[in-house]
Amino acid sequence: MNELERLKNIIKSFSVSNKTLAVAESCTGGYISHMITNISGASNVFDMGIVCYSNQSKIQLLNVEAESIESYGSVSKEVAKQLAFNIRNISHTDIGVGITGIAGPTGGTKQKPVGLVYIGFSTNEKTDVYKYEFKADRISFKKLVLEKVLDYLVELGK
Amino acid sequence: MNELERLKNIIKSFSVSNKTLAVAESCTGGYISHMITNISGASNVFDMGIVCYSNQSKIQLLNVEAESIESYGSVSKEVAKQLAFNIRNISHTDIGVGITGIAGPTGGTKQKPVGLVYIGFSTNEKTDVYKYEFKADRISFKKLVLEKVLDYLVELGK
Repeated sequence: MNELERLKNIIKSFSVSNKTLAVAESCTGGYISHMITNISGASNVFDMGIVCYSNQSKIQLLNVEAESIESYGSVSKEVAKQLAFNIRNISHTDIGVGITGIAGPTGGTKQKPVGLVYIGFSTNEKTDVYKYEFKADRISFKKLVLEKVLDYLVELGK
Repeated sequence: MNELERLKNIIKSFSVSNKTLAVAESCTGGYISHMITNISGASNVFDMGIVCYSNQSKIQLLNVEAESIESYGSVSKEVAKQLAFNIRNISHTDIGVGITGIAGPTGGTKQKPVGLVYIGFSTNEKTDVYKYEFKADRISFKKLVLEKVLDYLVELGK
């Protein structure tokens, strides 16, 4: 099944389950929200997206703790968890997605290389964060993150 | 010049002028932020994007007046103006972009047809809103809005 079909099925599944969704994304820069909103009917499911590119915007809009960014870095499991949990609470939706990573080509370090990404999913039951490392250019990186997001949303939309 | 080259030039121009940018977009659903952040170096210029898809998110995140939405509708000059002005103030950036429209295929009326879009640009000097009507499918609509946004950003980045 291609990406568009998967997205359509997810929007349909969320609609049928009467579930709603919000996304806080850093390194994907709006791509996840963009792809979801390409689907007609997305407005029944998708409430808001926040592209929290700067650290300040993560703190200001998503209530990420400044201490967490200082201690763990903005690309960390802790920050992804707060992004996912907080966007769900801010938007009063059922599912919150939080994404932070390094799209590259610059900004990588030995410990946190280009392509590293943490993706968090928050429901009223739990908030889980998954770690990936994608060796890809800046634009392919976004697409690879989307694929993973869709893998989880298929399950969460049921 | 193709779109990617135009985007690169705009990011470069903003960087050289030491200007920053934030985007509040409704109908384009994250596409404008996504395309800007495809450019390496965007993080020096682009601070945040808000995809305020629901009316509630426009009120809650962008401080759009509920009375304006009631009086003029969420797709209106007044709401675009508030989106542009308020995202600039919230983000403390130099340029705020606010976009509200009807991507379709549903949601249009005789007075506000599918393809109608208001695009606002706010600087510390003024906030202007431009009205367009694009006869296009949902995805082409986003691209046509981006083209117009870039036309104005070329000038504003100088």
